[in-house]
Amino acid sequence: MENITATIEAMAQKAQHAAQVMASISTQVKNQALEVMAQGLQAHQDYILAENQKDLERGVEAKLSTAMLDRLRLTPARLAEMRAILHEVAALPDPVGETRMWKRPNNLQIGLMRVPIGVIGIIYESRPNVTVDAAALCLKAGNAVILRGGSEAIHSNLALQKVLTEACRQTGLPEEALQVVPITDRAAIFHLLSLDQYIDLIVARGGEGLIRTVTEHSRIPVIKHDRGLCHTYVDSEADLEMALKIVYNAKVQRPSVCNAMETLLVHEEIAEKFLPACIAQLEEAGVEVRGCERTCQILPRLTPATAADWDTEYLDLILSVRVVPDMQEAIAHIARHGSKLSEAIVTNNYQKAREFLARVDAAAVYVNASTRFTDGHQFGLGTELGISTQKLHVRGPMGLEHLTSTKYIVFGEGQIRE
Amino acid sequence: MENITATIEAMAQKAQHAAQVMASISTQVKNQALEVMAQGLQAHQDYILAENQKDLERGVEAKLSTAMLDRLRLTPARLAEMRAILHEVAALPDPVGETRMWKRPNNLQIGLMRVPIGVIGIIYESRPNVTVDAAALCLKAGNAVILRGGSEAIHSNLALQKVLTEACRQTGLPEEALQVVPITDRAAIFHLLSLDQYIDLIVARGGEGLIRTVTEHSRIPVIKHDRGLCHTYVDSEADLEMALKIVYNAKVQRPSVCNAMETLLVHEEIAEKFLPACIAQLEEAGVEVRGCERTCQILPRLTPATAADWDTEYLDLILSVRVVPDMQEAIAHIARHGSKLSEAIVTNNYQKAREFLARVDAAAVYVNASTRFTDGHQFGLGTELGISTQKLHVRGPMGLEHLTSTKYIVFGEGQIRE
Repeated sequence: MENITATIEAMAQKAQHAAQVMASISTQVKNQALEVMAQGLQAHQDYILAENQKDLERGVEAKLSTAMLDRLRLTPARLAEMRAILHEVAALPDPVGETRMWKRPNNLQIGLMRVPIGVIGIIYESRPNVTVDAAALCLKAGNAVILRGGSEAIHSNLALQKVLTEACRQTGLPEEALQVVPITDRAAIFHLLSLDQYIDLIVARGGEGLIRTVTEHSRIPVIKHDRGLCHTYVDSEADLEMALKIVYNAKVQRPSVCNAMETLLVHEEIAEKFLPACIAQLEEAGVEVRGCERTCQILPRLTPATAADWDTEYLDLILSVRVVPDMQEAIAHIARHGSKLSEAIVTNNYQKAREFLARVDAAAVYVNASTRFTDGHQFGLGTELGISTQKLHVRGPMGLEHLTSTKYIVFGEGQIRE
Repeated sequence: MENITATIEAMAQKAQHAAQVMASISTQVKNQALEVMAQGLQAHQDYILAENQKDLERGVEAKLSTAMLDRLRLTPARLAEMRAILHEVAALPDPVGETRMWKRPNNLQIGLMRVPIGVIGIIYESRPNVTVDAAALCLKAGNAVILRGGSEAIHSNLALQKVLTEACRQTGLPEEALQVVPITDRAAIFHLLSLDQYIDLIVARGGEGLIRTVTEHSRIPVIKHDRGLCHTYVDSEADLEMALKIVYNAKVQRPSVCNAMETLLVHEEIAEKFLPACIAQLEEAGVEVRGCERTCQILPRLTPATAADWDTEYLDLILSVRVVPDMQEAIAHIARHGSKLSEAIVTNNYQKAREFLARVDAAAVYVNASTRFTDGHQFGLGTELGISTQKLHVRGPMGLEHLTSTKYIVFGEGQIRE
């Protein structure tokens, strides 16, 4: 236990020192490091896959679900995706140093400049690709990063770190700008969260348990990437053909992600016309549909939804469907059960579109589009570190810019305050 | 105890409801409420001063320091200042609704819109004017606010709240958008900090003890307004006449505030020439000077500084002075002892100015100007809620814009994700 706290504290101290060095490394050198990292992933592919195999074997022993094992698995194709991310982050403009300046009546020239945050701790689960995405983004924004992935991926994460750190060494970045916590004991997390003298920001990505643990124990500011319980509301004045496409896409295109739809809300005036075709199409794609009382009257073959369904993030081919008397009830349902991530209305009524946009409180609110677009790439921000579900600093996709802070620089010629 | 948690929880719940209403109140109505609040402060001046008198009497009994009592005291002039702030906040442009839009290749139109944060809890000490400043800024940005001032100011704060809430009632703002915690027991703070289901942001303004308590116990994101230990470094290539003015201003003009200078660093090459005149001028203004060994060699009448001096925020007419061999040591001293708030160099050397600006990590870094300018008004942001000493969401003066969050609004015509 004492050993764990000492290890973690030493890592955080080294990270702080590395962050000071990182802050003045040029964009050129940072980009070169990212390119050399991509080469390293290729050159050491066999090593990384062999280490990943150890995690997979332990995962099978530990009886992880097929879905979990699939998320954990690295393949040449997935490593190629990681390389693509590294190239892409290298190509993004460096936010550090961007400055907006203005002049005051007393001739003081004031600039608000983007600077690195410092040391960023990232606590996440499962998918080892996050290790590479997070490292790339944090380093490009001039930060040092401490990564703490899931214990089930420890061999994979340490192997990736070894390869990426070698690229740091080769290109002149401080090696300790990128560290992976080698300890799977949860005590390591708790100690990490207490070190606000060294660490400036914690990013937490994972299930509700992880998020709760982090927000309850952290003395360091946290940005959380929480669950997504998203709705699509099909209004009485919707283009039903468009609604069919949007609903299908929001549920089926990739059900395991946070911006996929979990509950469909349908205006009662069009429910009888819309639901049979819509649900048949979903069922054909393998979706299990659970309906409210009215929905089950229209389609008696459906499983009735229970109260718990409206609060469940399935992340799977399951959908709950509710018929509502009007848009007000749809908005109220979303306020009660939604996770404030990604919410959509399908309507051709101008006033309803405006009201839905104004009244629904979420990171992203859509008119006539799929909830699946809530994503850094889709919004045009480039690669993202995840999707923030809180209201401070960044809400929605978290890109490179959000991994920076600011500093005022002030040029004077002897000004004093009156 | 149970009573306290129930009271606090009920307040937070009501605040959440009020925040939902506030989000759609027009700028006109919000501005009118602020103007009516200013009228109320004038109309009820006698009542407010009488309630403040109760706090002052209790303060004398509790043997509060003269400085504390002075900060607690309300006068017609101080109430006039509060009215001026209300008029000024009413005149500021409303940040809510400001939207930047762009279009994606698939024709999705995406807008990033400023929206209120929701419910903001403010925990602060002493000065009752914060009650009015904070209420004005939070309400103008469309939020609900729960204020928890120091127990020594409880009568004053409740009296101010009564007057301001009456203005809410008259102008159509929800009354519970503005609440003052009526309980002085610290248990009230702890319970408030646990209610992350209702409260979106905690702003903590006060001494180190308060800040520590809040960051350790809060499940809610915190923006802290911590201490300021600021330095001025007078370089070997400084214009010494300018340096004299800047140093004097940074120490003497208002020593009790966080952006006042606490430590003067002087390059050894100009120390003998600069320090005698500089220190004589400061002593004339009543400043007690504590010097490093070299400083005391130059001016043997000075008190020697102890190790603790370099880490002390005096907030008073006391200054520690250290002679340094070069700018590198000045920057290292600032990194070791500074609070990362407001740091200045006086120099006419271009390269040193650039290096100091780049390497000193602080909310505001100055060349040839007084550290005292770190302030929302002075920077041109309007009234501030305080000065954030953290790196997330806002660093430096916290203005109206920083009391908002964002929401993506997306206009489609049936787009789905491929």
